[in-house]
Amino acid sequence: MQKRNATVAVIGAGDYIGGEIAKKFASEGFTIFAGRRNGDKLAPLVKDIEAAGGNIHARSLDARKEEEIISFLKDADEHAPLEVCIFNIGANVNFPILETTERVFRKVWEMACYAGFLTGREAARLMLPRGRGNIFFTGATAGMRGGIGYTAFASAKFGLRAVAQSAARELGPKGIHVAHLVIDAGVDTAWVRERIKEREGEAALANLDPGRLMRPASVAEAYWQIYQEPRDAWSFEREIRPFAEKW
Amino acid sequence: MQKRNATVAVIGAGDYIGGEIAKKFASEGFTIFAGRRNGDKLAPLVKDIEAAGGNIHARSLDARKEEEIISFLKDADEHAPLEVCIFNIGANVNFPILETTERVFRKVWEMACYAGFLTGREAARLMLPRGRGNIFFTGATAGMRGGIGYTAFASAKFGLRAVAQSAARELGPKGIHVAHLVIDAGVDTAWVRERIKEREGEAALANLDPGRLMRPASVAEAYWQIYQEPRDAWSFEREIRPFAEKW
Amino acid sequence: MQKRNATVAVIGAGDYIGGEIAKKFASEGFTIFAGRRNGDKLAPLVKDIEAAGGNIHARSLDARKEEEIISFLKDADEHAPLEVCIFNIGANVNFPILETTERVFRKVWEMACYAGFLTGREAARLMLPRGRGNIFFTGATAGMRGGIGYTAFASAKFGLRAVAQSAARELGPKGIHVAHLVIDAGVDTAWVRERIKEREGEAALANLDPGRLMRPASVAEAYWQIYQEPRDAWSFEREIRPFAEKW
Amino acid sequence: MQKRNATVAVIGAGDYIGGEIAKKFASEGFTIFAGRRNGDKLAPLVKDIEAAGGNIHARSLDARKEEEIISFLKDADEHAPLEVCIFNIGANVNFPILETTERVFRKVWEMACYAGFLTGREAARLMLPRGRGNIFFTGATAGMRGGIGYTAFASAKFGLRAVAQSAARELGPKGIHVAHLVIDAGVDTAWVRERIKEREGEAALANLDPGRLMRPASVAEAYWQIYQEPRDAWSFEREIRPFAEKW
Repeated sequence: MQKRNATVAVIGAGDYIGGEIAKKFASEGFTIFAGRRNGDKLAPLVKDIEAAGGNIHARSLDARKEEEIISFLKDADEHAPLEVCIFNIGANVNFPILETTERVFRKVWEMACYAGFLTGREAARLMLPRGRGNIFFTGATAGMRGGIGYTAFASAKFGLRAVAQSAARELGPKGIHVAHLVIDAGVDTAWVRERIKEREGEAALANLDPGRLMRPASVAEAYWQIYQEPRDAWSFEREIRPFAEKW
Repeated sequence: MQKRNATVAVIGAGDYIGGEIAKKFASEGFTIFAGRRNGDKLAPLVKDIEAAGGNIHARSLDARKEEEIISFLKDADEHAPLEVCIFNIGANVNFPILETTERVFRKVWEMACYAGFLTGREAARLMLPRGRGNIFFTGATAGMRGGIGYTAFASAKFGLRAVAQSAARELGPKGIHVAHLVIDAGVDTAWVRERIKEREGEAALANLDPGRLMRPASVAEAYWQIYQEPRDAWSFEREIRPFAEKW
Repeated sequence: MQKRNATVAVIGAGDYIGGEIAKKFASEGFTIFAGRRNGDKLAPLVKDIEAAGGNIHARSLDARKEEEIISFLKDADEHAPLEVCIFNIGANVNFPILETTERVFRKVWEMACYAGFLTGREAARLMLPRGRGNIFFTGATAGMRGGIGYTAFASAKFGLRAVAQSAARELGPKGIHVAHLVIDAGVDTAWVRERIKEREGEAALANLDPGRLMRPASVAEAYWQIYQEPRDAWSFEREIRPFAEKW
Repeated sequence: MQKRNATVAVIGAGDYIGGEIAKKFASEGFTIFAGRRNGDKLAPLVKDIEAAGGNIHARSLDARKEEEIISFLKDADEHAPLEVCIFNIGANVNFPILETTERVFRKVWEMACYAGFLTGREAARLMLPRGRGNIFFTGATAGMRGGIGYTAFASAKFGLRAVAQSAARELGPKGIHVAHLVIDAGVDTAWVRERIKEREGEAALANLDPGRLMRPASVAEAYWQIYQEPRDAWSFEREIRPFAEKW
């Protein structure tokens, strides 16, 4: 692995998608700055990346706090130029509208949309003077379609998509690639497997069709592809789903 | 005018669109409950509607306060069944992303999205037991497209559109018509005229093409049409623009 | 009924939607020019409209023949100015892609798209010198979404939607209102009832939920609404569906 | 270069995009079957690919002829399994609607949509028994938006997009990856440069911003990326544009 003098920040470096993105970019020689709510949970990721010869700085990060985002990204950029910033915080909840409390509505927005805005803005602030950089947002089906029970989650994810779109139009001509990856199917995580078990039973889980869930590594691969796009042919949005998915 | 035993709530009963919606429904015999930040500014609307033989209750209302929304709609519904609830609060701002403060981002969202969620949820709570009612949201171009400088406004308006969509899918089968009216052009208001003067000069304003701005009364007419749709052929979304508009 | 010195052309005046549109506009005083493949089948429509005191000219019309469209619309416009032209020809088929013959693909396109282009172009030619007129196209879910088995039908309906959009952008500023009504659910026709019986059995048909199918008269009402929009607040597209429809 | 026992068919192997796609896949070891209207014009492409050690079969092909598409793809598949089939025929024209002849409308559709349907269907027929394969379609802005003057071209490109979408939904679960690449900006071709000179003058052309046009090789790279997507995370559609493009 050839080390690069560049950092990749992953905000929302969870056990699945976020972690795999970190591993992928680490394996390509970038130093990773990984943040998640409870930084202690990053220990296995740090271990994996370091075992593979990569570099990672792991931090506790409440992405809803402006000053925390600012200092997290500033630290990354001081270590080496911030080349890629990936916002990957989700907050999937489903409630009938009457049972969606104002607290839930606000909290989901703070995590999935407001924190994304802060992240995008601060990454742009660091990248603009250099006229280069990449800011990627993880979106979801709920960012494209407001389904039943998704008043809070869809509202936040639509809002995040708007942030990404406005930022892409403003920052693209200044050399910064902003993209929005829409995860339009289940990803293979413990949480998703638990939902399948709940709704369809143990047997359904045991016999899970290989074309039903996306491996987190495949999501990371999609980000790697987007990163590699030449700047005369950037894409803004990409929806991904397994081959067998109905859509 | 034949009076009806039904109320129409207009949340965001501003001098232009909101006021015209109130007048239109008042002229059709509904009792209007009109709310806006500073209730004193509703005096001319009250005067107009009463002069025309209509009924209106005007209130100061901070739609970002859950308890205020709850009591405003409850009062309306106690007066007579709440037949239509229209959320019409805008918060149009334009800033480069780096100059969009967290305070602006949050405030625009609270006004244009969060307040809309509270309104929709509480209107639904009152309407569901009767299995009928109408909840309409005023959207904008920025709810469909995140343009340069619209990080805050587009994010809030996308979020509102998601609230409307999720609510429409959940509440439609329960007899409540949820719709989202997209105002895809300038409306003839003092604010819009001021912007035109600023950008294009006095002359441009003096010679304003009649096909350039929408009259507030035409927007109100669109809501009246949506209200009249038979329930076997409801529309969810309608974009309106003047005949001469480029889109 | 007050008669108007204006004609409404309905191309594809079938037994359900087209016929109801004709009746609606006839009842508002317009002279109807109704065309369908086999003009003999228009006899009941003529009888209904005349019994109600309306005026109608019924014709056999193969809308895939340029010269037939030209002379049909020219006759209508010579009778009285062509005020509204409605293209309402469908061609719903469903085949797996491998079983979609080139003949089917071509024929569906000729009926649902090419004939719509000819209609729109020739109506525009008559209306442009007067700087006013209305050209409406009946669209379908398949014009928005290419589902399984709809290679031919969706392709034609997407194509028709593009014709409508391009025409709307070009002709709007010249005073002609072009609109696209998307019928996003089953309409209550013999054909649709037959499909339900086939797929779900007699009982399903007998106990048909009143919120499941749209009455043709409700579709006609939607067109009437679009026709009445003031020209400073035109809509281009409207999707309609029954309150209970899942979408 | 390691040779593969697999063919890639490029239908519409023009001097720019199509040719670059052919070169890219040839450089990855695939045998290319390249077709274009006048096969003689393929000589330089053959020379380039062979000089680089690649394999190519070049043919005259009228893609609007069902039997020609069938035999072209059959020959490719008999040579070695057809792994990728790319439909890349454009037919960009711009006319006011009144000047769009029925001949132009039909011809543009035959080239840009009907030929695409034939290609997709026949490629699927060869690939389905193996449960694997890739069918990619080159789309354009006009496939997403019907602009002024694009009645014919947008109608055909919308229609092609519907073919791609229906095919993707039907064939994906059977192991065939169908994708639609939307070229949302000018590509650096002689034709586009000529248009720029016409509209903006020689100087504009001489000082062409490097972020304005896409290199054909970048478009080819996008197809190569799509081809490499793992099957648990396929994308259907990707819009590409240069970093400086307004959208």
